[in-house]
Amino acid sequence: MSEIGIVGLGVMGAALALNFASKGHDVQGYDVAPDGARRLAERAAREGLDARIAPHADLAAMMGALSRPRAVLVMVPDRFVDDALESLRPFLEEGDVVIDGGNTDFGDTIRREKDFAARGLNFVGMGVSGGEEGARNGPSMMVGGTKAAWDRLDEMLRSIAARYEGDPCVDRLGPDGAGHFVKTVHNGIEYADMQMIADVYGILRDGGGMSPYDIAPVFRRWNEGPLQSYLVEITGEVLAATDRTGKPAVDVILGRAGQKGTGRWTLIEALKLGQSASAIEAAVAARSWSAQLELRRAAKAAIDVPAEPAEMPGLEVLEQALLTAKIIAYDQGIHLLGAASDHFDWRLDIARIAEIWRAGCIIRAAMLNEIAGAVRGGLPHGSLVLAEPFTTRIREGLPALRRTVTAAMSAGIAVPALSSSLDYLETLRRGRGTADLIQAQRDFFGRHGFERRDMEGTDHHGPWWDDHDAVPSDQPAGEPE
Amino acid sequence: MSEIGIVGLGVMGAALALNFASKGHDVQGYDVAPDGARRLAERAAREGLDARIAPHADLAAMMGALSRPRAVLVMVPDRFVDDALESLRPFLEEGDVVIDGGNTDFGDTIRREKDFAARGLNFVGMGVSGGEEGARNGPSMMVGGTKAAWDRLDEMLRSIAARYEGDPCVDRLGPDGAGHFVKTVHNGIEYADMQMIADVYGILRDGGGMSPYDIAPVFRRWNEGPLQSYLVEITGEVLAATDRTGKPAVDVILGRAGQKGTGRWTLIEALKLGQSASAIEAAVAARSWSAQLELRRAAKAAIDVPAEPAEMPGLEVLEQALLTAKIIAYDQGIHLLGAASDHFDWRLDIARIAEIWRAGCIIRAAMLNEIAGAVRGGLPHGSLVLAEPFTTRIREGLPALRRTVTAAMSAGIAVPALSSSLDYLETLRRGRGTADLIQAQRDFFGRHGFERRDMEGTDHHGPWWDDHDAVPSDQPAGEPE
Repeated sequence: MSEIGIVGLGVMGAALALNFASKGHDVQGYDVAPDGARRLAERAAREGLDARIAPHADLAAMMGALSRPRAVLVMVPDRFVDDALESLRPFLEEGDVVIDGGNTDFGDTIRREKDFAARGLNFVGMGVSGGEEGARNGPSMMVGGTKAAWDRLDEMLRSIAARYEGDPCVDRLGPDGAGHFVKTVHNGIEYADMQMIADVYGILRDGGGMSPYDIAPVFRRWNEGPLQSYLVEITGEVLAATDRTGKPAVDVILGRAGQKGTGRWTLIEALKLGQSASAIEAAVAARSWSAQLELRRAAKAAIDVPAEPAEMPGLEVLEQALLTAKIIAYDQGIHLLGAASDHFDWRLDIARIAEIWRAGCIIRAAMLNEIAGAVRGGLPHGSLVLAEPFTTRIREGLPALRRTVTAAMSAGIAVPALSSSLDYLETLRRGRGTADLIQAQRDFFGRHGFERRDMEGTDHHGPWWDDHDAVPSDQPAGEPE
Repeated sequence: MSEIGIVGLGVMGAALALNFASKGHDVQGYDVAPDGARRLAERAAREGLDARIAPHADLAAMMGALSRPRAVLVMVPDRFVDDALESLRPFLEEGDVVIDGGNTDFGDTIRREKDFAARGLNFVGMGVSGGEEGARNGPSMMVGGTKAAWDRLDEMLRSIAARYEGDPCVDRLGPDGAGHFVKTVHNGIEYADMQMIADVYGILRDGGGMSPYDIAPVFRRWNEGPLQSYLVEITGEVLAATDRTGKPAVDVILGRAGQKGTGRWTLIEALKLGQSASAIEAAVAARSWSAQLELRRAAKAAIDVPAEPAEMPGLEVLEQALLTAKIIAYDQGIHLLGAASDHFDWRLDIARIAEIWRAGCIIRAAMLNEIAGAVRGGLPHGSLVLAEPFTTRIREGLPALRRTVTAAMSAGIAVPALSSSLDYLETLRRGRGTADLIQAQRDFFGRHGFERRDMEGTDHHGPWWDDHDAVPSDQPAGEPE
């Protein structure tokens, strides 16, 4: 009898099956497409793991071969999760644990967990990060579910997880949807991180006139300093890569970025929680814009307004700018985790989240160990910006970020992720912002009232309203925001 | 018997009651708080309109005094709409029309309309813009509902609407939630417009060292040129206003901006539709940031990194920059209306929407007549940017927007709404962006595949994957975005 069954033997499911097998676990696998089982069998044989992997084209056969209580990991695209759960339903018995390891909206996970619990079953929502390579050799896994379900999975998942100095990058982070929510925010940070890198690539290419082959060593060198991270590392790789036509790989790739949803989900949840993750917003926006190919082609012809050439900052300035912006991406993600934890009463251990992001996942970075330490030490007002060593680093890096964004923008180069991070930082540090004017406008047209700097309570501005004293401040004001 | 009953006699409900009465309609009014009816009675008497207004503290009495089929306008905060509808339920008869004139999520309106229709009743979702002053003297109204319901309301609503060169600023824009959706986007544009103005105010104040009284005449003058608009007009007013303590009004107002939801709703819908309205995002973000008072106070002390003083652009450059950014705010809103119209099959007449925004509403502006004309003429790729006179204006204004954002950012002044508009424009006009790198990274770690510039179909980059040929491009790739 096998310890685990995997439903869905695509890129990620197959890689996880091989990972479990290579750690000494017996694995059963099943895919609706008969091809899936065959391909996994071939690959298992190639890797000498066929003794531990039994792929099936028949779900009943797979379910019959699992030890009880059973653990079944579902690895299918999110739109097929309900179908997969439905097909499992007749086989499930009390105490069984079904894990959804895909990129699933955490709201769906909450719903499914409730449904399972009502039937005496365990449902776990698990975010898995690291791509195919991580899944095969050690992913980072963010688990949401009951303590009982976690006890069934704990040891097995630890054995296949990435490790950071021996510490497995997996943990139960909270109940029901907590794991998938944390994975969503992980992906949001990933979006921001990728766009910040792309912004710098754009500066070097369009402002500095450098070829991809010139830019590759820059990222490779940065990967040996404080920017060390998986995404900086692979940026060096892809920029150095040559296409089969002989051109640099990125030069043949159409610049229309795809997205599957987690970036958008992060933002929707942030908005619902009254938070703003501007760096993630900018990155999601940049992907949406890139997809408007026809519009961009027409606009290129119509808005032919080149900028004056401007002097680009040196590589050290760019490195510091990227580092500073990156702190903001993490900061906004962490802030959002805190808000969600309060709202859903998840009691997330955010330091532990940072710890399990230190290896295996796409946003793994040298910085994450420091982040974990800073969070463990307590973040003033929930913000990395106010915790060492980040405060010092921001103080040092802010001028570089300013110079970088200013140079890019005066040269007509869009840097949405860098500029939105800079806007956030400048807003934070300035003290007085411009919202006093916004509040004045709102009171003028909508009688929304305002707080005063010098007194308690809500006020209205007398001269703007003849009868303002007659209106209590909790009066519904119909017009608008 | 009266033609219309109003439930909810707060700021907006009372103002609309007086407006109806002053146009010769007999109005019945009701408020759950007995005070509401009393206050309206007093105000009606003051304005000599008491013969036409009958305020009640008893709903049955009000409903009994309406001619059939009845028209009842509900003006309550959105969280009380269901309660109000429930209280109306026993009185309603076939053919009656209930209008929700509040700022309601259009999804709720769709749900309520279905529910009403199933009972043979009409439910109309109507966005009302213009603040109290507009409601009293002529608002802009965006109506969603059946043709039959509109026929009952048409004449009455036209009589109280704002007029632009004689054309009443009200129309049926589509079924069920269409009116409230359009109002939501109106408010999103309003957020962006307000923040763009606030950005320029911040430049003049913090970069130019000008007092509110110095800045007021700048906006007053701009209000006589192409920036002419209600929001620019009232900006001049509020900046010139003096508080009862003798200080400029904006200087006593605490810079913590409120928001009631429509800005966020706009963004959530944009994200669901795969759109990005970056200028609105920036404005919503700026309000959220402003609310983090404690964090900002701590950050001011911790991140004490003033920028070098920089030369600020002249007033003409700022005016042109603001005008250019404003076009982007409208453009992004209109783009979103188009996407929603397609998605919900509403067949929105966007030119008509621009027309009914020309007077009465908060975003009314000289520019809206030109926008209506441009939309009526057909927008290439759904974008204002590609339609005259806006293309020419953007070509002329883009250098000014660049100079403005660059100057502000080098002086350490946050300009989130201006910079996000600039990022969008530069992205549009540049042709090649940086998404080729994003796609390369995604293919590297998640095997997402990419399109090529030089060939059809989806490709993978050979050297990154040993077995890339074995994987069809529609394979579910589990990892992330």
